[in-house]
Amino acid sequence: MTQVHVVGVGMTRFGRHPDSDAADLGAAALMEAIADADIDPRLIEAAYCGHVFQGMVTGQRVLAQVGLAGLPLANVENACSSGATAIREASFSIRAGEYDVVAAIGTEHLTSQFRGALTPDPSDPEAAVGATMPGVYAMRARRYMEEFGMTREQLALIPVKNKANAARNPLAHFRKEISVADVLESRPIADPLRLHDCSPVTDGSAVVILMSDRAAARHANGRSVRLAASALRTGSVDTEPTSMTFEPLTRDTARDAYEKAGIGPEDVDFCEVHDCFSIAEVLRVEGLGLFPQGEYPIAVERGEASIGGRLPVNPSGGLIGKGHPLGGTGVAQVVELVRQLRGESGERQIEGARVGLAHCRGGKAVGIEGAACTVQILIR
Amino acid sequence: MTQVHVVGVGMTRFGRHPDSDAADLGAAALMEAIADADIDPRLIEAAYCGHVFQGMVTGQRVLAQVGLAGLPLANVENACSSGATAIREASFSIRAGEYDVVAAIGTEHLTSQFRGALTPDPSDPEAAVGATMPGVYAMRARRYMEEFGMTREQLALIPVKNKANAARNPLAHFRKEISVADVLESRPIADPLRLHDCSPVTDGSAVVILMSDRAAARHANGRSVRLAASALRTGSVDTEPTSMTFEPLTRDTARDAYEKAGIGPEDVDFCEVHDCFSIAEVLRVEGLGLFPQGEYPIAVERGEASIGGRLPVNPSGGLIGKGHPLGGTGVAQVVELVRQLRGESGERQIEGARVGLAHCRGGKAVGIEGAACTVQILIR
Repeated sequence: MTQVHVVGVGMTRFGRHPDSDAADLGAAALMEAIADADIDPRLIEAAYCGHVFQGMVTGQRVLAQVGLAGLPLANVENACSSGATAIREASFSIRAGEYDVVAAIGTEHLTSQFRGALTPDPSDPEAAVGATMPGVYAMRARRYMEEFGMTREQLALIPVKNKANAARNPLAHFRKEISVADVLESRPIADPLRLHDCSPVTDGSAVVILMSDRAAARHANGRSVRLAASALRTGSVDTEPTSMTFEPLTRDTARDAYEKAGIGPEDVDFCEVHDCFSIAEVLRVEGLGLFPQGEYPIAVERGEASIGGRLPVNPSGGLIGKGHPLGGTGVAQVVELVRQLRGESGERQIEGARVGLAHCRGGKAVGIEGAACTVQILIR
Repeated sequence: MTQVHVVGVGMTRFGRHPDSDAADLGAAALMEAIADADIDPRLIEAAYCGHVFQGMVTGQRVLAQVGLAGLPLANVENACSSGATAIREASFSIRAGEYDVVAAIGTEHLTSQFRGALTPDPSDPEAAVGATMPGVYAMRARRYMEEFGMTREQLALIPVKNKANAARNPLAHFRKEISVADVLESRPIADPLRLHDCSPVTDGSAVVILMSDRAAARHANGRSVRLAASALRTGSVDTEPTSMTFEPLTRDTARDAYEKAGIGPEDVDFCEVHDCFSIAEVLRVEGLGLFPQGEYPIAVERGEASIGGRLPVNPSGGLIGKGHPLGGTGVAQVVELVRQLRGESGERQIEGARVGLAHCRGGKAVGIEGAACTVQILIR
């Protein structure tokens, strides 16, 4: 069976795009991915489009804008894992032998669709009593501080790191470095989380073009990166009691991905993880097995997660710095992985990176039913 | 590479379900499909959920209700082809070697989400000037009458046939036979279409359980039906000028499906097609190559499309009689195909049926960019 290779990547600037919609942004990113792959666009045989709030047949509108109307396309949704899920489905369509060249699009015009704190489902009784995303992550931060002695200042170092990376990313929503004091003095959102601990409401799109072995051999020109694993799980309380400070769902999805890729966490050179809030980055990298539980805040303090450190986390700026256009997020992570693995990341470049990991977590915040988690591993 | 087999089917009653939501309906249909397959539910390794208006992570909520939280699941959307697309993606995941047993769910609680005439996109300028679905199909009916001499009475025979079939389907939204006079005297919607020419606003869900060769050999107990083709295309104006009375998109998608299945239209014993309006059934069966262009109304008049006729069309009652819960529709068509091919359709049974075809068409009504068309072929 064929392997799957990322051969072209494209991405819009993340931020506010008042004069565009989700289809416009998707089309811009798709055009760039086609140019990056340096292929005739007519080689693309099918597409997948991940988004959350953009309404019916959004992906079809993307294709129409770039003259590719008519291709088979499925829109996919998995909350904040929607874009990553689009990549997974695209990879299945190639491995199934159905296509050789498939585009995975993630797009979201969030500023026009969305106000306030995200809730997984408006009918959710937990959300109705205040268990919105910021509320739940605030409780998780508080509990983690209690269990592992993390200080508020240590937690602030995560937005400081991610916004420093974003300042070096021309496509990031935020391009300004901040200090620990900036974090601690920013507007309270849900105690102890403050504005700089939160990912923003962002418009943006990213696209990757995937190929089979056969197509990559003809068209990749030696610039391809292998999609070694694309794992997905959804939330469950079956396996063990839900914990505020550890994510079995992230651990289990990562285990699937490591097994598929034939590597372990010790082989990962850098990662992009779902830092929807500062505390979320802690829970994710520990769930992924990249740092021991309770130790990530200290590792950040030592610079281990910075570019140039032992295991850079969110070199793109992450959701906090680069921005978080739901459907666009998971694809943009893979765009960052590919550019890093190709050595094209300029002043954000991680030297010698060979294995990159991308992690998304969508839907409900604690490990219950309305959630979707993805882990993708790319190897140069 | 493995083939894909439908091994279990389930479906709720279609109609109004004021005390349920889309997840409740999906769970009921999934439980029934598991019982029909007569398997341990823990054999199911992954799922896909097709819906349009049900919000984030709907499929995850279905799984949680039946104790299957935790499975990999992707929600998929392709307007009225959403359920059919879920089956396609599920089949790819099996052919890719990722899973052996996958559930494809289609569900929609439309009565709570939706009022008035469907438009593909509220921002669509065509919709804003009245080119809603009923408006466009009314123009197509008028043009077809002009080009091919179809009478208004001939057109009425399609709802008469479909509601006669629905009256024999315990799960249909409408269970009452109607006459040509009933159609012609019903409330005008968009001239010449009247209320009985239109599919209703329906709640409902359907589920199919798919298996690989290996799993079917162990678990199917000789009751499986092979999914010989699952083709998808989206709308384009590239190939030829859009016609009001013929659908190149349906023709081209069918061509893909016939090629994959290794059959021609002459091999099809019966079909379920997307009769969102009476005229739509005409356009679909002619686009599929099952009847020559301009001749279907006469064939209906002669009883050729009735149960017992040469090529029964919409034995389930179709969208007009059985109902049209967007995401549920495409999966329910395949449920009907499987039950017919197994000989389990009671007083609707088509004798000796071996090859069934299901057709969905979602999004914009004329062959332009915001559309998705599916054709699936099942062979006993």
